[in-house]
Amino acid sequence: MSGAGLRVAIAGATGAVGREMVATLELRGIEVSELRPLASARSVGQLVHAFGRDWPVRELTTDAFDGIDIALFSAGGDRSRDFAPAAVAAGAVVIDNSSFYRLDAEVPLVVPEVNAEAIHGHRGIIANPNCSTIQMVLPLEALRRAVGIERVVVSTYQSAAGAGQAGIDELLVVTAAALAGQPLVNKTFARPLAFDALPHIGTFQPSGYSSEEEKMCHETRKIMGLATLPVSATCVRVPVLRGHLESVTVDLCEPLPTEQARAVIAAFPGIVVDDDPASNRYPTARDCVGRLETFVGRIRQDNTLPRTLHFWVVSDNLLKGAAWNAVQIAEYLTQTGRHHAS
Amino acid sequence: MSGAGLRVAIAGATGAVGREMVATLELRGIEVSELRPLASARSVGQLVHAFGRDWPVRELTTDAFDGIDIALFSAGGDRSRDFAPAAVAAGAVVIDNSSFYRLDAEVPLVVPEVNAEAIHGHRGIIANPNCSTIQMVLPLEALRRAVGIERVVVSTYQSAAGAGQAGIDELLVVTAAALAGQPLVNKTFARPLAFDALPHIGTFQPSGYSSEEEKMCHETRKIMGLATLPVSATCVRVPVLRGHLESVTVDLCEPLPTEQARAVIAAFPGIVVDDDPASNRYPTARDCVGRLETFVGRIRQDNTLPRTLHFWVVSDNLLKGAAWNAVQIAEYLTQTGRHHAS
Repeated sequence: MSGAGLRVAIAGATGAVGREMVATLELRGIEVSELRPLASARSVGQLVHAFGRDWPVRELTTDAFDGIDIALFSAGGDRSRDFAPAAVAAGAVVIDNSSFYRLDAEVPLVVPEVNAEAIHGHRGIIANPNCSTIQMVLPLEALRRAVGIERVVVSTYQSAAGAGQAGIDELLVVTAAALAGQPLVNKTFARPLAFDALPHIGTFQPSGYSSEEEKMCHETRKIMGLATLPVSATCVRVPVLRGHLESVTVDLCEPLPTEQARAVIAAFPGIVVDDDPASNRYPTARDCVGRLETFVGRIRQDNTLPRTLHFWVVSDNLLKGAAWNAVQIAEYLTQTGRHHAS
Repeated sequence: MSGAGLRVAIAGATGAVGREMVATLELRGIEVSELRPLASARSVGQLVHAFGRDWPVRELTTDAFDGIDIALFSAGGDRSRDFAPAAVAAGAVVIDNSSFYRLDAEVPLVVPEVNAEAIHGHRGIIANPNCSTIQMVLPLEALRRAVGIERVVVSTYQSAAGAGQAGIDELLVVTAAALAGQPLVNKTFARPLAFDALPHIGTFQPSGYSSEEEKMCHETRKIMGLATLPVSATCVRVPVLRGHLESVTVDLCEPLPTEQARAVIAAFPGIVVDDDPASNRYPTARDCVGRLETFVGRIRQDNTLPRTLHFWVVSDNLLKGAAWNAVQIAEYLTQTGRHHAS
């Protein structure tokens, strides 16, 4: 950090996550002396307003990182591959929201409430996990610390925002077309998402799982340090604009009655338990958009198996699932003086 | 059966399922000599067109069943409780789509492909299972016959049509309001369903499960004759107009590679396997509305546990989930000469 504030570059500053990164830096009151929004050539000339002034968008190139302390990347895996090393070489610490480096053994994959200590070993790049994974590992870690966990099964209800602004826009347009009885056009999603649910996020792998489903398995294992934990996901895109919802089943190492599970989860940092079935209280996407926390409800011990617990977890996929988790890592770096590449 | 055709009463004839019952009787070419649509007093005077003529709606009363061979009920549990015994006393066989009699030990609960033989023991009333349960037990029974099953975990993606025409209408209205930035009003659903997902179907029980989730457990056990099978459901209403989708995880008694599982499921009656991830083939609600079959895709052996299988099952909740399953039972009764109450 030079002088009074942090010099922050944001690669992908004009995208849905990039905009939330800027907003979250402001929201958290981080002292930023320079904001350097970076994007593709066609966005050059735009201005990003933050911290009381306008910052011109510059082109994302290998020489765009001089003097930068922290570079937040959210411009896709190819951009991270091509430009993150240059940012590190220029002296920045990269916090990368793409999937490119996540499973690299030399790159920490971090959800600060779960494994902040992994940040200490970084070599210039720290990876931000997949959005669906981040919100799930918070309650899983709470349960793991309490009684241990043996197996996870999750089905997701993921919003259009997971595909960025293009996804949100497509859902709005195709829904209006459906209501008007007009032809349904899709490009961002594999099928028209209006009034349907698509068990297809990312690309299908030889295993029969989608790439999103494989991420949820492998990233959960890495973040939690449980290399062989069985984690099986079914990832489904639903016609929700923003916010991801998940139905999670976890087999525990010991029985855990519902009330104890609720207390264990509620005590974990970053989680708000919103769970009172008798009053019809449970989190939904509408409640959670714009919030930094992860919300958990429908917590219940299995009706047959005392070591099994079910819950419903919801978070804003652009915030804790992306921008806020990245900014949390940046806060940790600055608070511990680790914001320069070693 | 008198003369050339069947005399069929439909209690709840003007509802979403009632209309599909009439349409399905016609579609299947069932010879109906009299159709007697029954509904509440406010629908009296309406006409139901079917089998080449108009049938006036009569009021659902205890003396509305004289001369009826088969009475299809889909007017809610209270109506079934109040009027099904009168229909049986008048000599009809009742096929009841409500939940009222489903767990009655003297009432068969039937999905014909799974347990048609249970029909033989009926005492005048045969229960049609819950929509979400019906479509799930088809592939489960296929797997059970092949290798046995030990445990089921399911998360549902259920459409507005599960709450009848009122549900469909509310989703359309609230979605249009959301797109227009107008206030969101909900009455049929606990929250505005537009662009959200609600883990709340039916009413919450002391167990922490919803009534819909408990139905999926107890009805699956009864239909399959597996009284202690662990079945845990999370039932979620999604902004889909019609058709239910489900993510199912089943622990088997023996390992079953994906290709064998696909073959086992495809060979089961009533199922269409639509499953080719390499070509982005999987069923969605849009594909399945108006179809009598149940569609299965995303079949895959667990990435870690060889005795675990995951699949995605979709069906039209108003057809196989309600009207068509009931008409199938009626067909079975007529084909086996069991259409009069014994």
